[in-house]
Amino acid sequence: MLRGVRTSPLGAPEVPGAPYSVWVLWGGHSRPHPDGTLSADGSVTLVRGGGGPGGPVTALVDTGGPWDRERLLRGLSERGASPRDVTHVVCTHGHSDHVGNINLFPAATLVVGCDISRGAGLYLRHGLAEGRSYVIHPGQLEVMATPGHTLNHVSLVVRDTALGTVVVAGDLFEKEEDEEEWRTLSEDPAKQERSRRRVLAMADVIVPGHGPPFRVFREWGEGDVPRGEEEEEEEGGGAEGDGREGRGDNPGGGGSPGDVPEEEEEENATGDVLKG
Amino acid sequence: MLRGVRTSPLGAPEVPGAPYSVWVLWGGHSRPHPDGTLSADGSVTLVRGGGGPGGPVTALVDTGGPWDRERLLRGLSERGASPRDVTHVVCTHGHSDHVGNINLFPAATLVVGCDISRGAGLYLRHGLAEGRSYVIHPGQLEVMATPGHTLNHVSLVVRDTALGTVVVAGDLFEKEEDEEEWRTLSEDPAKQERSRRRVLAMADVIVPGHGPPFRVFREWGEGDVPRGEEEEEEEGGGAEGDGREGRGDNPGGGGSPGDVPEEEEEENATGDVLKG
Repeated sequence: MLRGVRTSPLGAPEVPGAPYSVWVLWGGHSRPHPDGTLSADGSVTLVRGGGGPGGPVTALVDTGGPWDRERLLRGLSERGASPRDVTHVVCTHGHSDHVGNINLFPAATLVVGCDISRGAGLYLRHGLAEGRSYVIHPGQLEVMATPGHTLNHVSLVVRDTALGTVVVAGDLFEKEEDEEEWRTLSEDPAKQERSRRRVLAMADVIVPGHGPPFRVFREWGEGDVPRGEEEEEEEGGGAEGDGREGRGDNPGGGGSPGDVPEEEEEENATGDVLKG
Repeated sequence: MLRGVRTSPLGAPEVPGAPYSVWVLWGGHSRPHPDGTLSADGSVTLVRGGGGPGGPVTALVDTGGPWDRERLLRGLSERGASPRDVTHVVCTHGHSDHVGNINLFPAATLVVGCDISRGAGLYLRHGLAEGRSYVIHPGQLEVMATPGHTLNHVSLVVRDTALGTVVVAGDLFEKEEDEEEWRTLSEDPAKQERSRRRVLAMADVIVPGHGPPFRVFREWGEGDVPRGEEEEEEEGGGAEGDGREGRGDNPGGGGSPGDVPEEEEEENATGDVLKG
């Protein structure tokens, strides 16, 4: 992992929180076979306001492979949710074991990598490619670009759970102990290394793409990422910050939700490419 | 386009052929709106043996966005096909307007970019990343890597139609006249430029990702790609060949189906990464 960072299994499929709790519907896996084939499936995670003071968003992070349709419907049902309740689907990237069931959620805002759409293919402007988060619920839920495994890979950040900040990170992390394997699966290992450091600097729990969730403990201060020998030049402001909105001017920013920028999905009128 | 290459609209949604015919179920589109949003949907193409001497494969190239579920079922039905008839689904890349409905085809071999799977997430070995095609029907149907728009973008090559070779090319080409736009949507424009040249050197018809199909006419010999000023070093053998199996030793190879390599999907035991 990274110097000064320890991890340990979460040991449970859920992290309660207010306004949002996190349920890992299933942890993914990846198993090579003697004949050279590989069995794999991606983790699927539900983020939900728990009623009462719960937030208005129900987010699903990744949808498993297309073979998971019934399993996904059952998993939602067991947590008292129907596909119609899901307001946001966030696919961390466009691989087949993550985007298999996006058509179960026609009413949701759909994030697949750095593309964000609603309805029948209306693609929204956003600043993900420039390092600005896509804020779903200010101070609580945001999508951040975490490039590397694919160039347009994203993760969902959930703040203020009982264990602190949860990052549902897709294949940015394969599993808890993945140092031997993540680089060979990466489109850009240098970018992925930087994305991993950013997330290790802010997350208290990480949900990886192909294993169960794990906790993160830092010996150093929050937001204060130590530099490694292999560190390269930064790309854009705030690349080493805490994952918020390109806040390069506030690298040691803590967890106060008050300073999270307003929802910007409709008004972010930069010249960003919308859809690639 | 490319010097010495002319194109013109096909003017029809289908190209008959034996053993395989090509039906464009719908041509995609991409329309910017004054408020900065963009409406987009990807082309969806059915490749089918026409009965009698027709081939055993029914392939669907791209599945539209998740909003297209009913439209896709209707489109298949209008051509006398059911989802169960589809033996191969080829998604040219993992963007949301191309992978929206892969869960309609649980029995099909699934290609999404450079990942190939069957059943409940059994990923096969292949040589796409090394420039070797994934052969579906020897001499007739093969998936070739066409990186650029995304790094793992692929296209389906259909030989021996009434108009010659059809390449269903996803977002390698946005539409017939796309010189003004494809680069800004590309993850790697230099790679995409090379992929476009390869396809322009072999295709008689191209189905682009966001427009209707178009014909390609070359003033120069088949497989003989002229070099441009911006040409960079090649990557691997056969990068300028006719798209077959790294045949760098046969750059002027014609269209004889006899010399297409055998099906290799199970026996290609190279050290390739299976799943990324």
